[in-house]
Amino acid sequence: MHPNPAPRDQVSKTLTHIKLLAQRCHRDREKRLWIEGIRNFIQAHDNRCEFETLVVCPILLQSDIADMLARRLAGTGIRKISVTPEQFRKISTAQHASGIGAIIKQPWRQLEHIGPSRKNSWLILEEIRSPGNLGTILRTAEACGAGGVIFIGPRCDPFDPVALRAAMGGIFHLSLVKSTHDRVRAWASRHGILLIGLSPEAPRLWTNLPAAPGHAFVLGEERKGLSDRSRAMCHAMVRLPITGWADSINVGVAAGVMLYEMVRRAQVTS
Amino acid sequence: MHPNPAPRDQVSKTLTHIKLLAQRCHRDREKRLWIEGIRNFIQAHDNRCEFETLVVCPILLQSDIADMLARRLAGTGIRKISVTPEQFRKISTAQHASGIGAIIKQPWRQLEHIGPSRKNSWLILEEIRSPGNLGTILRTAEACGAGGVIFIGPRCDPFDPVALRAAMGGIFHLSLVKSTHDRVRAWASRHGILLIGLSPEAPRLWTNLPAAPGHAFVLGEERKGLSDRSRAMCHAMVRLPITGWADSINVGVAAGVMLYEMVRRAQVTS
Repeated sequence: MHPNPAPRDQVSKTLTHIKLLAQRCHRDREKRLWIEGIRNFIQAHDNRCEFETLVVCPILLQSDIADMLARRLAGTGIRKISVTPEQFRKISTAQHASGIGAIIKQPWRQLEHIGPSRKNSWLILEEIRSPGNLGTILRTAEACGAGGVIFIGPRCDPFDPVALRAAMGGIFHLSLVKSTHDRVRAWASRHGILLIGLSPEAPRLWTNLPAAPGHAFVLGEERKGLSDRSRAMCHAMVRLPITGWADSINVGVAAGVMLYEMVRRAQVTS
Repeated sequence: MHPNPAPRDQVSKTLTHIKLLAQRCHRDREKRLWIEGIRNFIQAHDNRCEFETLVVCPILLQSDIADMLARRLAGTGIRKISVTPEQFRKISTAQHASGIGAIIKQPWRQLEHIGPSRKNSWLILEEIRSPGNLGTILRTAEACGAGGVIFIGPRCDPFDPVALRAAMGGIFHLSLVKSTHDRVRAWASRHGILLIGLSPEAPRLWTNLPAAPGHAFVLGEERKGLSDRSRAMCHAMVRLPITGWADSINVGVAAGVMLYEMVRRAQVTS
């Protein structure tokens, strides 16, 4: 049996499309992203991501669950193409080509539709330069049960392939939102969320958080830190103390320390 | 004035040598490393690293302090070569070529010569696959005032150029040690240091640390975690709780959360 029932030019068009989605401008224009790997595929499915095209390489695919889910999705009318191992490897950026991937719609949510649970921390990212740092932040946020991540400004893209890889599947369970300073401030006020900025110069220590039903931590660019606009938006600023010669710590580590400080507090008060 | 007073073949030999030091096998054999940048240079000087060769590009170098230190070192008999901007850029891996660098001896210390202060945490790394993660760990350790980092097993190299860059100068203030399970266990017993392993499966939470004068956190490889041998070496195992779908968090983040938990405790009890 030939592994590719779709017309050859349709397959080749899709593969070209997938390659283009590695570029930010194409992802932004099409509002799609390419995901691959069994874990990502299953998590995208379980979180009701909107699938557009499934790409399966039957020779490579080793997961019965992923195979079953792909068949079920195809049964609902979603386009599915079968490719050869060579074709799959050409579009894959993973170390081990899993044989399963998909083009999905970018799962953005609208801030105004989110009524945040006050038990979960939120993160607000102004601008993270490194997609690896961004992915690490998303991974920790998901692991800690954070509610979601709000992106202020256009720079960050959680659907960058490097960020996706570092996030280790973390993006599918988080609410991801693009917004502005004004809308974030209004949303936080409405829901009693305290906006806490992180800055190495803040006089207040990271453990000295004002009491509030909910917290969102605002993180800025790796070198410059938070902009004046973001600082003005925050209800309080805190710092992680530095006793060595360093002038800062990695932004992904800082996010993790803050998120686990909230986990610790929830544990102490529960 | 010609910027290069050294004979041309001597300069070219040194530049070749520096390029080779980007490779692990050469670093290991020569027990040297190449550092560059004003911050690294000054910090290596202030921490009494042993300089072997100074490389200065007078046209690029913008720091009077670094220039003065380089002259002073040269005055003590350390070889100094001047290079052109083109030559410097060829050996530089930094985004902006600073015009200053040096070959220094790898600043390893002997575990048996270290009487650890019990106020400072230590890290024990079995095997960290990513040099970026390793550098982030060193950066946080230095920022938190950790005593040092002990490497068990041959895999990790804190002098990898990627690790050095991620460490942001962090390596020069830490005691760096290569050792074995048996020697670490003996050292820890002698100095009352509790060895705490991190593992996602540990029943004990990260905040529930046994009381001890000093703590060292033992971290394992990104995917496999700690080996049986390292687990057996630990006095206790703890985990960072994961409430999301992730099965782990980034090892650099985990190290940061543990180190800041110790900073928090020191703050509460002081």
